[in-house]
Amino acid sequence: MTVDRVSVALFGAGRIGKRHGRTLAFDIPAAELSIVCDVDETAARQLAADLRCDRWTTDPADVFSDPSIDAVVIGTSTNAHASLIAAAASAGKHAFCEKPVALDLESTDTALDAVTKAGTILQIGFQRRFDKGFAKAKQMIDSGAIGKVESIRESMRDPGPPPPGYLPTSGGLYRDMTIHCFDCLRWLAGEEVAEVFAMGSNLVDPIFGELGDIDTSVVSMRFESGALGVIDNSRRSAFGYDVRAEVFGSEGAIMIGYSRDTPLLHLSPSGVSSDHVYWFLERFDDAFVAEMHAFIRSVQSGAPPLVTGADGRAAMALAYAAEASLKSRTPISPANF
Amino acid sequence: MTVDRVSVALFGAGRIGKRHGRTLAFDIPAAELSIVCDVDETAARQLAADLRCDRWTTDPADVFSDPSIDAVVIGTSTNAHASLIAAAASAGKHAFCEKPVALDLESTDTALDAVTKAGTILQIGFQRRFDKGFAKAKQMIDSGAIGKVESIRESMRDPGPPPPGYLPTSGGLYRDMTIHCFDCLRWLAGEEVAEVFAMGSNLVDPIFGELGDIDTSVVSMRFESGALGVIDNSRRSAFGYDVRAEVFGSEGAIMIGYSRDTPLLHLSPSGVSSDHVYWFLERFDDAFVAEMHAFIRSVQSGAPPLVTGADGRAAMALAYAAEASLKSRTPISPANF
Amino acid sequence: MTVDRVSVALFGAGRIGKRHGRTLAFDIPAAELSIVCDVDETAARQLAADLRCDRWTTDPADVFSDPSIDAVVIGTSTNAHASLIAAAASAGKHAFCEKPVALDLESTDTALDAVTKAGTILQIGFQRRFDKGFAKAKQMIDSGAIGKVESIRESMRDPGPPPPGYLPTSGGLYRDMTIHCFDCLRWLAGEEVAEVFAMGSNLVDPIFGELGDIDTSVVSMRFESGALGVIDNSRRSAFGYDVRAEVFGSEGAIMIGYSRDTPLLHLSPSGVSSDHVYWFLERFDDAFVAEMHAFIRSVQSGAPPLVTGADGRAAMALAYAAEASLKSRTPISPANF
Amino acid sequence: MTVDRVSVALFGAGRIGKRHGRTLAFDIPAAELSIVCDVDETAARQLAADLRCDRWTTDPADVFSDPSIDAVVIGTSTNAHASLIAAAASAGKHAFCEKPVALDLESTDTALDAVTKAGTILQIGFQRRFDKGFAKAKQMIDSGAIGKVESIRESMRDPGPPPPGYLPTSGGLYRDMTIHCFDCLRWLAGEEVAEVFAMGSNLVDPIFGELGDIDTSVVSMRFESGALGVIDNSRRSAFGYDVRAEVFGSEGAIMIGYSRDTPLLHLSPSGVSSDHVYWFLERFDDAFVAEMHAFIRSVQSGAPPLVTGADGRAAMALAYAAEASLKSRTPISPANF
Repeated sequence: MTVDRVSVALFGAGRIGKRHGRTLAFDIPAAELSIVCDVDETAARQLAADLRCDRWTTDPADVFSDPSIDAVVIGTSTNAHASLIAAAASAGKHAFCEKPVALDLESTDTALDAVTKAGTILQIGFQRRFDKGFAKAKQMIDSGAIGKVESIRESMRDPGPPPPGYLPTSGGLYRDMTIHCFDCLRWLAGEEVAEVFAMGSNLVDPIFGELGDIDTSVVSMRFESGALGVIDNSRRSAFGYDVRAEVFGSEGAIMIGYSRDTPLLHLSPSGVSSDHVYWFLERFDDAFVAEMHAFIRSVQSGAPPLVTGADGRAAMALAYAAEASLKSRTPISPANF
Repeated sequence: MTVDRVSVALFGAGRIGKRHGRTLAFDIPAAELSIVCDVDETAARQLAADLRCDRWTTDPADVFSDPSIDAVVIGTSTNAHASLIAAAASAGKHAFCEKPVALDLESTDTALDAVTKAGTILQIGFQRRFDKGFAKAKQMIDSGAIGKVESIRESMRDPGPPPPGYLPTSGGLYRDMTIHCFDCLRWLAGEEVAEVFAMGSNLVDPIFGELGDIDTSVVSMRFESGALGVIDNSRRSAFGYDVRAEVFGSEGAIMIGYSRDTPLLHLSPSGVSSDHVYWFLERFDDAFVAEMHAFIRSVQSGAPPLVTGADGRAAMALAYAAEASLKSRTPISPANF
Repeated sequence: MTVDRVSVALFGAGRIGKRHGRTLAFDIPAAELSIVCDVDETAARQLAADLRCDRWTTDPADVFSDPSIDAVVIGTSTNAHASLIAAAASAGKHAFCEKPVALDLESTDTALDAVTKAGTILQIGFQRRFDKGFAKAKQMIDSGAIGKVESIRESMRDPGPPPPGYLPTSGGLYRDMTIHCFDCLRWLAGEEVAEVFAMGSNLVDPIFGELGDIDTSVVSMRFESGALGVIDNSRRSAFGYDVRAEVFGSEGAIMIGYSRDTPLLHLSPSGVSSDHVYWFLERFDDAFVAEMHAFIRSVQSGAPPLVTGADGRAAMALAYAAEASLKSRTPISPANF
Repeated sequence: MTVDRVSVALFGAGRIGKRHGRTLAFDIPAAELSIVCDVDETAARQLAADLRCDRWTTDPADVFSDPSIDAVVIGTSTNAHASLIAAAASAGKHAFCEKPVALDLESTDTALDAVTKAGTILQIGFQRRFDKGFAKAKQMIDSGAIGKVESIRESMRDPGPPPPGYLPTSGGLYRDMTIHCFDCLRWLAGEEVAEVFAMGSNLVDPIFGELGDIDTSVVSMRFESGALGVIDNSRRSAFGYDVRAEVFGSEGAIMIGYSRDTPLLHLSPSGVSSDHVYWFLERFDDAFVAEMHAFIRSVQSGAPPLVTGADGRAAMALAYAAEASLKSRTPISPANF
């Protein structure tokens, strides 16, 4: 059987670029990593070498003008996402882009319009949907295993705040972190959010307050059916990366959580202890691979991607609603944005 | 050693009266169950017999006029709580009373005033504080084991709605069910709540909506320090009684939850399964005994009770705030009530 | 309804006597604790007072000559078990006796013969059978939930060695500790053991070796059907009392284990930890009550006890076989004893 | 930094060959998969293509005569292991070989002699040592975290018997399956086994009995220090692949086990359930990668491999001892072999 491999260009040679590059280069027989592009020449060259890829560049035009390239994977810093998406669309290339599309809805819409016009595939990097646990939960919910969904809860905490230099460009807690939860709740519930109420505090580090940001938050939400949702977030988690969800239905419930790094218990006079996964890259290692497989399959089959640009926009609108609620101290509908 | 036993009268021969009666009659050497009082003569006589207690009555005056009785335990229906508390105080008798003191704050205040005036001991039946898990969590928090508390989450779900006949007298979700969580969060946080925001739905049974009540709720709250809290409740839980809490601090976290009824796992081709505790009387069996021990110790030593009337009032004020928030769609301070 | 209560005499006012006394005095409406008997007058008097029982004695004859007493519960030291069983039988009184009946099979048989002759009920104190987890496992096995049993494993470890003074009278590891596991495996398997092979070491404390005893052991066994069993024991467990079982069948498996004392997890930078039950009296608190309920029910109904004298003998024969195997270094059949 | 990559030839294009091939081709930057060799031409060609490897052959001589090849990875059927090890050694090539070296000690010794003579590196595929849980356990034991080891228990069960056609060439339960446990216990204990006693049955499928083999087994063993070990195995496990270990020390214990495939709990009226890992390739996915990394590092650094040919021989001698014990019904020392 001779299937043409999908030729992929990788934008971004940083942390997440490396992660996706490894998948593209080695884990997906149907994909071929053709070129690595980064503004930092050394980083581009080094990552290409590590991934046994012959080509690298600092100029996106090298990618967009190359007709042999089918698709791009965008893992740059956020401010470059929207323009790369639009440029890819204009060049007729499919794109996978890390969340968020942009830090504002205007740029998001511009980028998505370009994609719609071009008719290319765009998949957004909400990798949580591809985690074995979350994916099975969705499947069970859709199959009716827990009846009608009545409430959903999601927790997400990072081990510690991002580097201070990143914070001013982060978009704030809701656009940077909670956006993963916004997407996940919409997806698990299978319906849209009618209103959002946000409560937030600055407890972890004064720098968040100085930037007008918060570091600890509880967001409650009502779905159109009346089902309720709640998300609790923090920029700090003493025990490591925390991501858990609970879905309560009329006939059962599902809990998703995974705390152990190794399958080992230590029993001693001071009790029974296990370790804990520290970092999202470990927690979602499989999910990062699975989402890339899904993207390549979409490109090959022409099937719509499993996470669309519209999904990315909807999650951002929820972030806007949460921010507006925080200021107005009232529930806000994401339909306003 | 000859310590005088505390002579106790029990009001109420129903479900919770039986539970406390058993403890008083058999499990506390320092207590003596002297008389059972219930408006239903048969119930009073039968429970007295079951508890090997010689006396029973349908007339509270038999209790209040008896100088040999030191204390009363009130496990009647809620509408009788406040007047019995006041009458006990007037008669100089210490009282343990199930939550809530009353369904409204006016009656609550009247009853608490009588207690204050009499200088008697009044302990409220928030048994969760006496559960081994919750008690140890509180102890760890107070000892600094998890640093500064930043957020607290509590879940509570009953297996199913109460009997329809009970609902109109329940006081609604917040005064009837969430009140346990309101007390628990205040207590775990060790500080007062600054504001409350409530979101609720009627999803479980139309009867709640018809009564102007809700059956599914998410309440978020901000404590005075800025720490956040969130409570999710439902009148339905397909898998049995659900009570769990999570406390996140600057240096660690605590999770309290207990799902298994028997220490047994069944492994089969369809997976690994365990059972689940079905009912709060099983879940808090030990706590009901522990709170009664604490009450008797307070009576003997004269030390203040571990759950005061003021605690009962504060939890009710939070219920008021939640109701007001539900109507006004804004955060409400319990200080308004 | 007026059911006559079973009048019970308690022999032994030590640790296990207190445990059973509490159950008889307070937890079983159908039983009445009538007298406490102990060779130590102070202990007998004190325990009777604590249990609100009017009578105590140091002379067993006071019990056996009293026609109002229906049954005896024997919680003395082991060397008195067999003669009290025989005396109870001769006096026409039913008996519950802690394991073992005696430290040797000759005395065991003499006592059991007396019971058979008298036609009284004798129940042996293998409380593990009454634990919720073990009881449910047995029920599931018997219902075919795991198909045909192919192997069973049981672990039992005490937190630390018994007091040195007790050891010379203990009967050694197999008669003192493993006997619980021997009974449990016979019972769970629902069939007899064909042969036993024992391997033991002296690792915990030299005193065991000096007494010709072992403190660490692995016993493997073959049941008549060919199913296999294995028991591992130790006189030391740094983390607390350890009792777990695993039953593997052709269609599934069951694991029984219970490590947490409180329903609390502590998550910190050093990992996730919980506590552990320390002591068998806590682990089997419910089972001690349940076995006494079962005994009283047998006495009332005349139904055979759930743990018979023959069960006690069979477990002791397995201990003999293990000891013989240890010496001969070959598998030994319990049918030899 | 320019490090020369280790050029590796892969023998065997079956299940385990594919697993190792993927690691060599994609996951180890320091390794290069240079050629795939299999007696089945189609299999060799297809695997090479899948792994993006240019060369394949059916003739081992193509490998051994090629001076550019540094090392071989042997994942063929067992009967070819020993001769390939010897041939590799003679050609001066390092070798990684799946367990066992051979089904008999004579061939094992011949192969190991060739390696010793050549001074090449030989690593045996006991992947369990590279599992995160087992590796951390070993590290903790060696660091003294649980004091002196007193007993070790290991369980291993396959979901179901191997294909009937494989059985006559399997070497029987002890050489085929238990050998993993023999290695693991020696390694965890950090000392040699003094004697072994085996009990086995034929319960799963009559075919094992017809071949003179067993399918269910308990092996107990004494280490030189007097510490005890026990291994329980079965060719059937209704719930999926079962591999767990428990190490009890004077100051604590370690338990290693991993049952969940996805981080998901389903709570319903029939209880709480999770899934279970079904297959060893999933359970040890990371370990297969880690052992290959270790092999390549040894080849590069010249450091001794973490699992030596002597380890492979010692595990096989334990299998011999277990077989001899099964026949003689007495404990047998592996030093006899």
